[in-house]
Amino acid sequence: GVNYMMKKILYETEAINQDGLNGQSYVKNGLKVAVSNPREKTLGTNPEQLLGLSLCTCMNATLQAIENEQGLKHTSEVRVSVTLIKGSTGLEFLVKARIHIPDVALSTAQKLVNLAKSRCPVSKLLSNSSNYDIEVVKDY
Amino acid sequence: GVNYMMKKILYETEAINQDGLNGQSYVKNGLKVAVSNPREKTLGTNPEQLLGLSLCTCMNATLQAIENEQGLKHTSEVRVSVTLIKGSTGLEFLVKARIHIPDVALSTAQKLVNLAKSRCPVSKLLSNSSNYDIEVVKDY
Repeated sequence: GVNYMMKKILYETEAINQDGLNGQSYVKNGLKVAVSNPREKTLGTNPEQLLGLSLCTCMNATLQAIENEQGLKHTSEVRVSVTLIKGSTGLEFLVKARIHIPDVALSTAQKLVNLAKSRCPVSKLLSNSSNYDIEVVKDY
Repeated sequence: GVNYMMKKILYETEAINQDGLNGQSYVKNGLKVAVSNPREKTLGTNPEQLLGLSLCTCMNATLQAIENEQGLKHTSEVRVSVTLIKGSTGLEFLVKARIHIPDVALSTAQKLVNLAKSRCPVSKLLSNSSNYDIEVVKDY
């Protein structure tokens, strides 16, 4: 349990699923997405894609803020792969963020990414999982 | 680092963000979403909503499978609130899943949810975070 009372709330949203794997998930007065089993040929997104979209957006928004603080042009790009595997605990997701910052040296990119890791809320939520990994890449 | 070679890969997807907080995030040949700062009045989704959608879909798909295994009708519903707060480590997300299963007693619902927690891949990724919480509710 988390003590909400002691914290300063900046934003709150709620996502809802009634249908299960095939149907839709939605935010009230917000995004509504068709969802489907990724292992079948039905149209729709899935938890893997939605998690990847959440993390790549959060991580790159954080990097953009850091670039801005340091007087750098925003050039960072984040790609997040999410892989569904049959692991030791049953079905598991492997989450890997690959980050490219073309405008700076690789060593500088690594420093910016380390800072972003320590700030990005989604990355912090995943940081205690051994299935989560971040890599700085020279190119994709 | 995770050793992919030893695992059976069932599905893989990649999400990309180049724009940062305001612009778009996308999956190649898949979902493309407009993203924006949730604290401004611009249209678009955000990492909070996308994470909530991922978790509510994954958790309810898992519950649906469990209901099915146990010969129960699918009636479960999952609502996930994601709250952006200024916490002890800077910006943080609080993630709370509230689960309602109208067709069964509360004690049975708690058992089904415990099973779902141990199976749902997104829940497993978050399970080591003190900012993640699951509650079985009698109604919303």
